[in-house]
Amino acid sequence: MNLAKFKVGLVQMSCETGLDENLHKALRLIGQAAQQGAEIVCLQELFRSQYFCQKQDTAAFDLAEPIPGPSTLALGEAARQHEVVVVGSLFERRDAGVYHNTAVVLDADGSLLGTYRKMHIPDDPLYFEKYYFTPGDQGYRCFDTRFGRIGVLVCWDQWYPEGARLTALQGAKLLVYPTAIGWHPAEKAQYGAAQHDAWRTIQRAHAIANGVYVAAVNRVGHEGPPAGGLEFWGGSFVSDPFGTILEEASHDREEIVVAECDLTHLETVRRNWPFLRDRRIDSYGPIVNRLIDPK
Amino acid sequence: MNLAKFKVGLVQMSCETGLDENLHKALRLIGQAAQQGAEIVCLQELFRSQYFCQKQDTAAFDLAEPIPGPSTLALGEAARQHEVVVVGSLFERRDAGVYHNTAVVLDADGSLLGTYRKMHIPDDPLYFEKYYFTPGDQGYRCFDTRFGRIGVLVCWDQWYPEGARLTALQGAKLLVYPTAIGWHPAEKAQYGAAQHDAWRTIQRAHAIANGVYVAAVNRVGHEGPPAGGLEFWGGSFVSDPFGTILEEASHDREEIVVAECDLTHLETVRRNWPFLRDRRIDSYGPIVNRLIDPK
Repeated sequence: MNLAKFKVGLVQMSCETGLDENLHKALRLIGQAAQQGAEIVCLQELFRSQYFCQKQDTAAFDLAEPIPGPSTLALGEAARQHEVVVVGSLFERRDAGVYHNTAVVLDADGSLLGTYRKMHIPDDPLYFEKYYFTPGDQGYRCFDTRFGRIGVLVCWDQWYPEGARLTALQGAKLLVYPTAIGWHPAEKAQYGAAQHDAWRTIQRAHAIANGVYVAAVNRVGHEGPPAGGLEFWGGSFVSDPFGTILEEASHDREEIVVAECDLTHLETVRRNWPFLRDRRIDSYGPIVNRLIDPK
Repeated sequence: MNLAKFKVGLVQMSCETGLDENLHKALRLIGQAAQQGAEIVCLQELFRSQYFCQKQDTAAFDLAEPIPGPSTLALGEAARQHEVVVVGSLFERRDAGVYHNTAVVLDADGSLLGTYRKMHIPDDPLYFEKYYFTPGDQGYRCFDTRFGRIGVLVCWDQWYPEGARLTALQGAKLLVYPTAIGWHPAEKAQYGAAQHDAWRTIQRAHAIANGVYVAAVNRVGHEGPPAGGLEFWGGSFVSDPFGTILEEASHDREEIVVAECDLTHLETVRRNWPFLRDRRIDSYGPIVNRLIDPK
C-alpha cells in the first residue's frame, strides 16, 4: 500500500505590539514555509497580537474581528498565492458580547474551509481566557484540505484526550494545535522543565493513542512587564503516530519547522499496534460525567 | 492543606516454568517490598506463570483458577501478615469456557476487596489474548484500600485514555497497571527504543491528564523459544501527577521499585493546572462511536 504524503510547516514567531506588523510577519513567513516545501502551514494561537489575556481589559475586545473578515481575507490570499493550506488562529467577534478563540482553515485555493472554536477555555493567573472567550459550540471538527484531512484544536484543548480522540475519530490524520503557552518567569527555574515536558508528553500521547500525526505551534518571546509577564516557550514540534518527534523548534527563536506526514507510515503504525480496533465503545458512556460518585 | 501519603511498591520479576515457584517468589518479594516501606504492593500481569498467550493451546486453560481461589488465599495471607495492600493479576476461570484476565485487590487485613477484569484485550503475533480472555464486563473500578483509593487496569488498557479517565473520575489517586509487554527479539534493534518510549509516554500522559499517580509493573526476562519468543522489557515505574518519573526499574533485572504518593502534591498539581475543572462534558458523548463518519 502506498498512500499520500504531505509536508506540514509550523510558523513559530514572536509578536510585536502592532497588529499589522504581526500580520505582515505571518504572511512573509507563510511564503517562506511554502518555499521550504510546506503544504500545510500553521500559525500560532492569536498570532495577530501580543497575548492580551494577561489582564482583563474591556478595551482588548477591540482586537476581535468577524470571520470571514480582514485576517481570513489576507490569509486566504496568501494560501492562494503560495498554493498552501493555511491554519490560522483569530480572536473572533461573533456578535456583541459573544467572542471566541477561533481557528480558521484556508484551503490551497484561498477558500475558507471552516472554523473551529476552542472548546476548552483556561483561566489561570495571566491566562484570563474565560473573561474573553465563550466556549466553542461547534464540537470537534475535521477539514478536507487539498493535501489531506486534518483536525484543528487550540492550546488548552491539548490537555484533553477526549478532544484529540473525537477529532481523530472523524478521520483526521494530522491534529494541529495553535498554542500560546509560556513560563511565569518566577516559576521557570523550579518548574519550567517539567511544565514543558508535560505539555510535550501529553501531545505525543495523543499521537500514540490515536495513530495520528500531531503538530503544536507555539509563540516565542517575552510579553508583558519586564519583571513579570510571560516567557512563551516556543518548542513547536511535529510528532509521528508513534510519538516520535520528527522536528522541534528552539525555546527562544523565531523558526519555521517543516516535517513530512506519511500516510503509509501511519497505516503501518496502526496495523502493528491496532489500538483503534479494540476500543470498548460499550463502556465509555460515563465519560460525560464531571466525576463518578461511589455507588 | 496536609493530606495523606502512602508508598507503592512494584515487584518486577522473571517467571519460571513452575506455577508454585512463581507464587513463592512473589510472596517472598511482597515481604521484601513491605520491609522497604511499601504499603501497596503490586505484582505484574499473570505473575503465576510464564506468558502462555504466545501460542493458542487448549491445555493452557488448565492454568486458570477461580477467584476467590488458591492464589487470592495466598496473597491475602501475605497482605495480612505484612499489613500491606496487594494488587495481583490472575488467569480467572469464571465458568466453563468463560475466562478472564483479572486483577485482584487484597486489603491490608487480607480481605479480598474486589476484582477488575481486563477490558481491552489485545491480539497480535505472540500475544493471542483474544483466544484466552473474554473482555471484562464490570467496567472500570476503584478500591478503597487501607492506604487510599486506587484503581487497577491491566496492560493493553494502558493505550486507552478512556480507561484511565473513567477510573480517575471515580476518585482513584493511583492507577496501577500490571503488565506483560516485551520486545520481539527480531524487532528490538529497529523499533525497541521507540516502542518502550511510546508505552512509557502514554502512561505518563494518563497521570498528567487526570492529575493522578500512575504505576506500571512489568515482567522481565526472555520466555519462549531461544530464537524467537518475547523479551519482556521490565522498566516498571511510578509517575507523579505531572508525568515526572519518580522511580524506574531496569530492563533486565528482577527489582522492587518503591515510591511515595503524596496527596498534598497531587492537590497542588491539580490546583495549578486544573484540567478536570474545564472538561467539556457536554461534548464528549460521541466518544462511544467506533468512528465518526462525515455528515
